[in-house]
Parts: sequence; structure tokens; C-alpha cells
Amino acid sequence: MSLTRSLAAEALGTLFLVTTVVGSGIMGETLAAGNTAVALLANAIATGVMLVVLIMMFGPISGAHFNPAVTVAMMFRGDCETKTGMLYIVVQIVFGILGTLLAHLMFDLELVQWGTHARTGLGQWVGEIVATFALIFTILACLAHRPEAVPYAVGLVITGGYWYTSSTSFANPAVTIARQFTDTFASIRPQDVPVFVLIQIVMGLVTVLFANWILRRTND
Amino acid sequence: MSLTRSLAAEALGTLFLVTTVVGSGIMGETLAAGNTAVALLANAIATGVMLVVLIMMFGPISGAHFNPAVTVAMMFRGDCETKTGMLYIVVQIVFGILGTLLAHLMFDLELVQWGTHARTGLGQWVGEIVATFALIFTILACLAHRPEAVPYAVGLVITGGYWYTSSTSFANPAVTIARQFTDTFASIRPQDVPVFVLIQIVMGLVTVLFANWILRRTND
Amino acid sequence: MSLTRSLAAEALGTLFLVTTVVGSGIMGETLAAGNTAVALLANAIATGVMLVVLIMMFGPISGAHFNPAVTVAMMFRGDCETKTGMLYIVVQIVFGILGTLLAHLMFDLELVQWGTHARTGLGQWVGEIVATFALIFTILACLAHRPEAVPYAVGLVITGGYWYTSSTSFANPAVTIARQFTDTFASIRPQDVPVFVLIQIVMGLVTVLFANWILRRTND
Amino acid sequence: MSLTRSLAAEALGTLFLVTTVVGSGIMGETLAAGNTAVALLANAIATGVMLVVLIMMFGPISGAHFNPAVTVAMMFRGDCETKTGMLYIVVQIVFGILGTLLAHLMFDLELVQWGTHARTGLGQWVGEIVATFALIFTILACLAHRPEAVPYAVGLVITGGYWYTSSTSFANPAVTIARQFTDTFASIRPQDVPVFVLIQIVMGLVTVLFANWILRRTND
Repeated sequence: MSLTRSLAAEALGTLFLVTTVVGSGIMGETLAAGNTAVALLANAIATGVMLVVLIMMFGPISGAHFNPAVTVAMMFRGDCETKTGMLYIVVQIVFGILGTLLAHLMFDLELVQWGTHARTGLGQWVGEIVATFALIFTILACLAHRPEAVPYAVGLVITGGYWYTSSTSFANPAVTIARQFTDTFASIRPQDVPVFVLIQIVMGLVTVLFANWILRRTND
Repeated sequence: MSLTRSLAAEALGTLFLVTTVVGSGIMGETLAAGNTAVALLANAIATGVMLVVLIMMFGPISGAHFNPAVTVAMMFRGDCETKTGMLYIVVQIVFGILGTLLAHLMFDLELVQWGTHARTGLGQWVGEIVATFALIFTILACLAHRPEAVPYAVGLVITGGYWYTSSTSFANPAVTIARQFTDTFASIRPQDVPVFVLIQIVMGLVTVLFANWILRRTND
Repeated sequence: MSLTRSLAAEALGTLFLVTTVVGSGIMGETLAAGNTAVALLANAIATGVMLVVLIMMFGPISGAHFNPAVTVAMMFRGDCETKTGMLYIVVQIVFGILGTLLAHLMFDLELVQWGTHARTGLGQWVGEIVATFALIFTILACLAHRPEAVPYAVGLVITGGYWYTSSTSFANPAVTIARQFTDTFASIRPQDVPVFVLIQIVMGLVTVLFANWILRRTND
Repeated sequence: MSLTRSLAAEALGTLFLVTTVVGSGIMGETLAAGNTAVALLANAIATGVMLVVLIMMFGPISGAHFNPAVTVAMMFRGDCETKTGMLYIVVQIVFGILGTLLAHLMFDLELVQWGTHARTGLGQWVGEIVATFALIFTILACLAHRPEAVPYAVGLVITGGYWYTSSTSFANPAVTIARQFTDTFASIRPQDVPVFVLIQIVMGLVTVLFANWILRRTND
């Protein structure tokens, strides 16, 4: 595929992913009458189903990364050229932020906001370690064993991650960066972003090493 | 397939689709004790799962459009003859309206009502732009890459759309027209219908052009 | 397959189906703190997912009818021998009732109860007409076009049916008969059972005739 | 595959499974504002979707048992060597307990707690009999008829089991043992563990015998 179309796919996919996360959080919180669990359920289901669809849409065009931690992991594995990967990451970050703005535009909110939701501390950091491992290993294991299931598996692992990780599974630097620009349900404080992003990138690489070992097809 | 049977499939599919949207909205709102998020969750899940089933049922007979924006897009692509397409659209609109009446009949409500739910303004219009793009591109991308997944992908993209778009993803002129004849959860005011329908038709065409570009299999 | 094993499959499948409907209704209502929509959501999801699993389990053994309306329809189509079909129906009714008792046993309730939930009137009867058509046509259309999807399609059409039909989609005489023996969330009054059963059987046959016409592969 | 990697797969899979059960219970209960049904819905959905993903991830490496009742059943069928099976069970129990601790770590709770949730009595024991039969028979029937569906079927049967069985479907000795070390939503009192574990192991064996009979492919 051409680089232009791959970049367009990463741009649109990440835009839609962030719009879904932020938009469904706004809709959920607005309607849930204080039952935050129902809002999170809507948030988790909407994000999961849209990930399935977005990966089906754009997977054959760009690989459907939508996530710098995935792109870095793929570069580390030698499955993505360095130049392509760098461009992917720029596009993911820029269009992720535009995704937040698009959600605000749809819900008649101020376009640029700053997050005030504290997401920090050992518990949440461990949550991101677990969430990023789960996401990246899901992708690598499915690519090895049943590649056609990648869209479904990624959607499900994120729907689950909303509930069992204390951080609600960001697991994506572009999404994390974009979510600091909203002060709605899905927001994160700017000062909490760097540690999340660092954990996500490092855990992406660690997971590649682990996957290289456990997914080997030899018998040793 | 014969035209008679194709038209019967479009009629029944659109009838069931609208009955599901309106009926599950009535059931959800009645039971949700004021927690509108739970009503919308029921609405979103019921519509999504029924779309999967209806497209499986009628896809091999008529293509399972159930949606004038889809039919116009298919005519524009040259995948649907003009005469057939015109008849599809008439049938979709008529049986969509009958779907609203059927839901009212099942729930012992007055058969014909007028919607009072305001759905207008820039935010909701952007919502419909996004929702229609997502729906039409899901169909075209899956037809190109994994046609057997169309039923699942369409069901999921609409379940998600209920939550992340401010308009709850109408994305269908026949459904939009039909929903003005109910004054229950899923209703829309008659005066808000024309802009929604216009956006849906135009975005259907725009999405075909975009898909022609990004889904090309050449390497340029 | 042997008749003994087929009958065992129908017995266990119907037992599990009814236990799921009644049991998840009890659990949902007990926990939902008056939000009936959440109870119905649990009921709908549990029934749908268990139908997928039960049809996968027992489909290759008995055809996974679990439903006299399905068995009568299959006999009418000539896909099920009369004697086998009669035995299926007896087993479905007996083990359906035992399914209600099993749910009561699990939840420490009196084993045999009488339903007091009124389910009658034109609206609900139309609901059963719609629900039974949807169920039987889902099965026949999937058998014609994509037989491997039957378990998923049936689970989804029932999950949806809980919400968009006013009767919550019984669509099954054995389940209807069994649900009169509980006075919990899923109950039905004994005097409302005969009309429901009549509608289900008749609509099963009507749907076979409709399917014979619309699913024909010829071009006339 | 090598034994080391198989054991690593069982370790990680069971760790993630228990972390999901305990973690999503904590998240659900914290957010549900007293509507326990919403908490259980989150718990059921999170556990189900993660089971699908974990079995996809680790199935080709270790068989994805994550459950001593499954391992004992597989040993009984002659599908798992005794020595391997014994090691699997040790690893499942140890890493299951670590899964509880990991959930506590993520949610900033005391690492080791003792369960106070009473789960005993005839009703709940019957619940575990039903739940374990359903889980083990799902696995064996899918292995016989459609092995590629095992991940989906297991996820669905457990999501359903949360609702229709009075015990919420533990059906897994390693998970049962691990859940006595938390005093949150998913907890069980230590004194209630032995009967649950006994039922699960025995029902695993009974289900193998039943499956041997009903899944035979001969015509006798």
C-alpha cells in the first residue's frame, strides 16, 4: 500500500478511536444519573466495538496500529520501517488530539479543555503495565496463531481492560496524550501523562521480548 | 434474485430495523426508572444485534441495504441499477414508517404520533456526518477486505455510534423519516428530519469517493 | 446419530435454556434494586449467550431445537421424521418444566410455583407473532445461506427480542409452558399460556411457507 | 511445545483470569452506587471477554486450561500426561493466588485479605454442579465439533453462568482458592472453599464420562 494511504488510515483510525473514547464517556456520564458504573459500561462497550470495526476497516491498509506503543513494538520486531513508523506516530498523536476536539464539537463543548482527573500512583501504574502487556501480547499472539481474529481480540481485551485494571486501560500513548485535552469522563491530568506514556512504550518492548520467547514454534 | 423477492427483503428488513429501534427504546425507557443510560444501552444493544441478524437473513437476497443512503451510494458505485435502487428507496421509506406503527401496536400505544425530541444544531449535524461516514465506510471496507464480516461490522458500528456520536447515529434516511412518527424514546421532531436526511445522502456519496481512493489495491 | 442421544441432547438443552431464562431473571431482579431495565438486560444477555453455547454443544447431535415450534416447522419441511419430532416435543416440554424447578432449587425457592405475571392482549400477541417469525426465519435463512452462523444468529435474535417485542420474545412453547411454573421475574400466568403457544406453532408454519418462497434460489 | 513455555502460559493465563474476576468486581462495586446488578454485569462481561482473549493467546501453547478441573478432566481422558497435569495444577493454584494479589496491588488495597462472603448450602452447591458441567461440556463438545470456537464458547458460557447459577459459576478450583484471599465483591469464605473444589473436580470427571457417551460418532 502507498504511504499516503497508510498515513490516512492511521490518521482516521486514531481520530475515530479517541472520538469514541471521549464521546461515549460524555454521553455515558450525561445520561447515567450518577451511576458511574453504567457510564463506564457504555464507555467500555463503545470503545471495544469501535476497535473491532476500525481494525477491520484499516488493518489491510496500514496495519491499524492507532497506537505509538504498537508502532514502536512493530519497529522493534522489524515489521515496520523506521521512517514509516516515525510518521505513523506523528499522525497518531496529531489526529488523536483532533479526535478529542471532534468529540467536543459534536457535544457542543468548548473545543480545547485541560484534564483534571488525577490518574497517578503505584496502583494505576501497575494497571498500565498490565493493560499494555495484555494489549500488545494479544496482538502478537493472534498474529502468530489466528491473524483473522485480531480485530475481535483487540476489541475484547480493551473492553475487559476498562474493568479489571485500575487505570481503565489507556495502553496507548496517542490516546493518553489526547485525553489530557478534555475535562470530561475520560480525562487525565497533563502532569500524569508522561509516566503513563513511558510505561506504555517500555511495556510494548518488554512484551515483544516475552512474545519472541513464548511464541517460538520450536520444541526447545 | 428476482426483484419481487429483493423488494420483500428490503421491506421486511427495514420494518424490523425500525421496529427494533423504536420498540427497544420504549421498553428501555419504561423499565429504566429514570436511568436514561440504561435505556440507551438496551436500545444500542438491541439495534446492533438485530442488524447482524437482519443482514445475515436478507443480505443474500437483496444486499440488505435497509437504508436509502446505502442504496444511493451503491447506485453511485454502479453496484445497483437505477430502477432497482429507486424501488428499494420507496419500499424502505414506506416499510420504515410501518415499522414505527408496528412498535406502537405491540406496546399498545397510539399508532401514529409526532416526534417532539429536538435533534438539531451544529453538534448533532457533525454527529450525523461522522455516523454516516462510519457506517458507509464500514460496509465498503468490509466488502473489499472481508465481505463475510459485513453483518457483524455493521451491527457493531451502530452499537458504538449510539454512544460516541451526539446524534446517537441515525445515519439512515428511512429510519430518520420513520422516527418522526413516534413520540417515544427514539423520536425526532419532523422539522429536524430534512437536514439529517440531506447530510446522510451527501455523506454517503462523499464516503464512496473517499473509499474509491483509500481502498484501491494499486501501489501508487 | 442415535435417537437416544438426540433425545438426551434435546432434554439437556431445553433444561439449560429454561434454567437460564428463569435463573438469570431471579438473579437480575434480586440484585437490580428496582431498576428493572438492568434485570432485563442481564436476562437478555444470559439467555442469548447460553443459546449460542447450547446450540454449539447439541446442534451436531440433535439439531438443537429445544423448541416445539422449531420441531413442528422442521417436521412440516420434511427435515424431521414425525415419530422423532413427537418424542422431541414431549422431551422439550418435560425437561423445560424441570429447568424451572432446577432454577428454583439453585436459588433456594419453593420448587413448584404458579406464575402471576399477566401476559395477554393484542399488543403482546402481536409481539409473539413478530418474535416467532424472527426466530424461525433466522434459523431457516441461516441454514440456507450460512449454516455455521446459526448459533450466533439465534442467540442474537433472542437477545434483541427481549427488548423490541412487547412480550420479551417467548417464541417457544416449551419455554412458555415451563415459565408458568415460576412466580419470579420470567413468569407467565397459566391462563395466558394457550394463546402464546398457539401463536408460536402457527407462526412457525407460516414462516416456513414464507421462507420457502423468499429463500428459493431460482430466478423467477 | 516445551513444558517451560506451557507452564508459563498456564501461569500467566490463570493470573490474568483471577485478576480480571477480582479486579472487575472491585471496579464494578466501587462505581455501581449500590446497584449490585450493574456490578455483576461488569464482572460477567469482563470475565467473559478476557477468557476469549486468554484462550486465544495461550491455547496453542498450553491448551489454555487455567483450571485444575479442566486439567484433571484432560488427564482422565488421556489428553494430558500425569506429570504435566500435576505441574499445571500447582502453577494454576499459585498464580491464581498471585492474581488476587495483583488486583489488590492495582486498586491500592491490602495485598492479602480473607474472604467473608458466605457461599454455601444446597442451592449454591447445585449451582456449582450445573456450572461445572456446563463449562466442561462446552469445552469437550466444541473440541469435538468446532474446535476453533472454543475461546468464544468458553467466554460466553461463563458470562451466562454469572447470572443463571446461584453461585455465579466459579467452576474452577484455582479461581475458587484464589478468591478466598480477597474481601471484595468476588470473595468467598475459606470454609466454603473445600466443598466447591470437591464438586468442581468430581463434576469434571462425571462430565467426561457423559461426553464420551453423547459425543460418540457411531450410530448405535
